[in-house]
Amino acid sequence: MKNFKIANIPGDGIGKEVVPAAANVLKAIAAIHGGLRFEFTEFPWSCEYYMEHGKMMPEDGLEIIKDYNAIFLGAVGNIELVPDHISLWGLLIKFRREFEQVINYRPAKVLPGVKSKIVNPKDFDLIVVRENSEGEYSEVGGRIFRGEDEIAIQNSIFSRRGTERVMRFAFELAAKRKKHVTSATKSNGIFHSMPFWDEVFKDVSRDYSTIETDSQHIDALAAFFVTNPERFDVIVASNLFGDVLSDLGAAIMGSVGVAPAANINVNGKYPSMFEPVHGSAPDIIGKNIANPIGQIWTAKLMLDHFGEEELGSLLLDVIENTTNKGILTPDIGGKHTTSEVTEEIIEGLKAR
Amino acid sequence: MKNFKIANIPGDGIGKEVVPAAANVLKAIAAIHGGLRFEFTEFPWSCEYYMEHGKMMPEDGLEIIKDYNAIFLGAVGNIELVPDHISLWGLLIKFRREFEQVINYRPAKVLPGVKSKIVNPKDFDLIVVRENSEGEYSEVGGRIFRGEDEIAIQNSIFSRRGTERVMRFAFELAAKRKKHVTSATKSNGIFHSMPFWDEVFKDVSRDYSTIETDSQHIDALAAFFVTNPERFDVIVASNLFGDVLSDLGAAIMGSVGVAPAANINVNGKYPSMFEPVHGSAPDIIGKNIANPIGQIWTAKLMLDHFGEEELGSLLLDVIENTTNKGILTPDIGGKHTTSEVTEEIIEGLKAR
Ligand SMILES: CC(C)[C@H](C(=O)O)[C@@H](O)C(=O)O
Ligand SMILES: CC(C)[C@H](C(=O)O)[C@@H](O)C(=O)O
Repeated sequence: MKNFKIANIPGDGIGKEVVPAAANVLKAIAAIHGGLRFEFTEFPWSCEYYMEHGKMMPEDGLEIIKDYNAIFLGAVGNIELVPDHISLWGLLIKFRREFEQVINYRPAKVLPGVKSKIVNPKDFDLIVVRENSEGEYSEVGGRIFRGEDEIAIQNSIFSRRGTERVMRFAFELAAKRKKHVTSATKSNGIFHSMPFWDEVFKDVSRDYSTIETDSQHIDALAAFFVTNPERFDVIVASNLFGDVLSDLGAAIMGSVGVAPAANINVNGKYPSMFEPVHGSAPDIIGKNIANPIGQIWTAKLMLDHFGEEELGSLLLDVIENTTNKGILTPDIGGKHTTSEVTEEIIEGLKAR
Repeated sequence: MKNFKIANIPGDGIGKEVVPAAANVLKAIAAIHGGLRFEFTEFPWSCEYYMEHGKMMPEDGLEIIKDYNAIFLGAVGNIELVPDHISLWGLLIKFRREFEQVINYRPAKVLPGVKSKIVNPKDFDLIVVRENSEGEYSEVGGRIFRGEDEIAIQNSIFSRRGTERVMRFAFELAAKRKKHVTSATKSNGIFHSMPFWDEVFKDVSRDYSTIETDSQHIDALAAFFVTNPERFDVIVASNLFGDVLSDLGAAIMGSVGVAPAANINVNGKYPSMFEPVHGSAPDIIGKNIANPIGQIWTAKLMLDHFGEEELGSLLLDVIENTTNKGILTPDIGGKHTTSEVTEEIIEGLKAR
């Protein structure tokens, strides 16, 4: 019996709706397929938790979580209660950093039965490989002067080690796909970090002679997502650029509500974290209309990570059958509820 | 007789095709409408110039240009010859900085007869107001260590003065439009500069009680461009975010080849610069298929800037008639050449 200990952190907003839904899907998988058990423990860490305790998680939060096999996270953020940079750096980004989840892995493709939001999504099927631990997301910096002279300084820090690491991950991935890596850069405008990024990309690409490469400035790249999505296979991007591209990819898929993501620890020292691309979506809380597919597809990435790739493929297959049948939440043009979509997926699993 | 002295800098690639085209349009306007003269002087500053002189413009280039009424620029960049950060910081960005062109003004809407690249572009008609002199585009930073330990540090610098200035520009503009300003932020991920940006936005918005505001993280905002473009009127953004959003806006318009831009000096000390959103487009050089509309629409923004708003409106009207008749270059689904589209616009002007 394989036993996976999973730390569920629903977090804020619709995270509290889609995490339980996706956990039920995983339980169904375990019930149907012998030899596998998921042991969920739920943690209430969130902006509400902050209101009560003055922090997003307990002092020993990392210690508590570190021996779990994975973190299954919903969404973090509620600006009515806590400024975003406090809530995110106290929970989501803290895990990414402290647990060395240096890669953010974000597939994007249009599901059958879901209308893409762009006119010509032919072959829109790509993976954004995002650096997840450094770059533009940095606590280095501060402010100086006051009043009208005030200045804020923000440092982006790019290490060769971190940059190479994410690029190698992208090349290895491309080797198993269409053998093409696009580097997201902005070396025409961003004077130090991006020419550095380009240099490392050139260096790393020399080790992968069978992989085709190209390099696009982020502005043009974002435009090509909309006008020429067929150009892409694997895209390697900095923390910020990967963030923007993956949301844009999600929009092209039809809704940010369907897009999955994995924060991967590659050195095996700490748990990886599975959290979809969407946020806490304050406007649709409590209506039972949040799209659970982002979280359920994210559960598929967790299965893959556990080495259960066959079950992972099966789950994606069942998700695709569900959308193909028109069982869709409102964000992708349907009339079904969170519960109905989840139930349909569970039934679909039982039927296999 | 009003006489406008214009410094034409075609620059690289298709800049050399579309700047002459748009200059012909302006000459036609002057020929038809008495009382107005454009005096063009052409400067060959470009990557080719760099190959010959070791710099993008002469030592006294700024001095030479500073008394012109405007700079009319094509595109800069040819990585076959010069690394992008050298060519851009030596010409385009140098003008923006030295001539205090602190605002980048970028309208985006779908022209009649041109198919948008998104499925539901209803009411896609917005203006990106981009900070153009500071922020993420900065020469502050550098590298330390060598080999596998190398680190690149990039500083973004946001001043309250610059941030307020671009925001006030956006609010004033919105007051003449649909009275809505969206702030592009990323205060959940970017720890110092973006919470600062949010603070300034809150402060400035207090002075404009009749304008509705909202604030969106850049990732979500980019996604909304594709899924809910009707949400936007005026968007105020940092240098980098404005760059990405305006290219994305251009893609939604159908092609980056149609999108206009103005780099505006607001203190009246130096010339403003008019340069479309697209780049030098190395893949289509010399084929007479570059879309001249981006550059011609940019000429319309220059007319507006000169106070010739009636002629500006007329020109946009004629552009719209041309696209509406299906006289389109290949990038927007047509079969016409750069020359044919330009000729049609000139004929259209003569007929009015
Ligand atoms: C060429 C490049 C430096 C420039 C920018 O990033 O500002 C361009 O993309 C633009 O938008 O004008
Ligand atoms: C919530 C926010 C800090 C986060 C990010 O920017 O990384 C989110 O947008 C994401 O993509 O996971």
